[in-house]
Amino acid sequence: MVGKFIVFEGVEGCGKTTQLQKTHLWLQETFPSKKIIVTREPGATELGLGLRQLLLSLKNQQPIYPAAELLLYAADRAQHVEEVLIPGLAKETIILGDRYSDSTIAYQGYGRGLPRAIIDQLNFFATNGLESDLTIWLDIDVELSLARTRRRGASDRIEQADLAFHQRVQQGYYQLAQSSPHRIKRVDASLDEQAVQGQIRAILQQYI
Amino acid sequence: MVGKFIVFEGVEGCGKTTQLQKTHLWLQETFPSKKIIVTREPGATELGLGLRQLLLSLKNQQPIYPAAELLLYAADRAQHVEEVLIPGLAKETIILGDRYSDSTIAYQGYGRGLPRAIIDQLNFFATNGLESDLTIWLDIDVELSLARTRRRGASDRIEQADLAFHQRVQQGYYQLAQSSPHRIKRVDASLDEQAVQGQIRAILQQYI
Repeated sequence: MVGKFIVFEGVEGCGKTTQLQKTHLWLQETFPSKKIIVTREPGATELGLGLRQLLLSLKNQQPIYPAAELLLYAADRAQHVEEVLIPGLAKETIILGDRYSDSTIAYQGYGRGLPRAIIDQLNFFATNGLESDLTIWLDIDVELSLARTRRRGASDRIEQADLAFHQRVQQGYYQLAQSSPHRIKRVDASLDEQAVQGQIRAILQQYI
Repeated sequence: MVGKFIVFEGVEGCGKTTQLQKTHLWLQETFPSKKIIVTREPGATELGLGLRQLLLSLKNQQPIYPAAELLLYAADRAQHVEEVLIPGLAKETIILGDRYSDSTIAYQGYGRGLPRAIIDQLNFFATNGLESDLTIWLDIDVELSLARTRRRGASDRIEQADLAFHQRVQQGYYQLAQSSPHRIKRVDASLDEQAVQGQIRAILQQYI
């Protein structure tokens, strides 16, 4: 079996991080001889951590403009691909990613309204053409997911954006899943954690 | 008179910063009623300062890959254009810039060998089409400029790159000046400070 890059996507509060961790543990038990790593965007590299702080910080008195934001995510991705993903896949690692290119299409494209053609060009340049092998989209009602996020107490710059923005992002994920049904698999993330994890395992059992 | 964006370009150690400061003082004396500001790339904004630290820091254990570096400069530029340049020019300010788009063509294009088509697209996206009104290229022999830089003691990540890299950058500036003779004016920066400043004033007197 060669390396695989499996990405978890969805709006804030969809349960991505929890499900990714559960999936990681399950895969480690299921394939004890396999190297499995967890990564994320932004912030999987030393450079990326610095960018993540800049992107998510509330300290910025001046807003980050949409074009600058898009380019920062692309820079984080370019470093991530070269430093983590390409070497990892070459060593036949299973890589579980918390967000990747589809996040940029959903958030900066559908959410912020930046032109899709530019986003596609930037994604292609930043990834050197590397797509996820499989993307698990945790589909959840946006009002429910934002309520979860608020209960959690954490609320960074992105999470404070308005409901309409997150609804556009959600619409973006819906369109992406429609147009790439083989690569992007939808999971109903409004159920309880065990039920969501069950759906994910069913998809991965067919896949790996 | 409307706002003007005048950029100083050249390899490390060409005297850019000194000449820009002298030019600033001289313009303030010559046009006492005019608002004149100094800006730079990277690092003219709060976001840009964070990026500058990431880009120039020697602390990074992992190298910054060329594609990520290019995208970071583009992000800094996009924020700079929106936050500083467009509002400044709208208020009829004279803006003196330490580096702009031509640096990216010279350093990332000629220096690092990234494709010119991608750099031009990124520059266009980041600047929203805003070019300098005038660019003063401080042309100096690369070995002389690097010797100056070393004497100064400061030596960040960029300045430690090798001689061949800086010679390719210099070649980039030469080609740019050839292809945009109206926008880019060459100054002989191997002379002493006063002589270099004299050439710059002569250009600006014709221009403003």
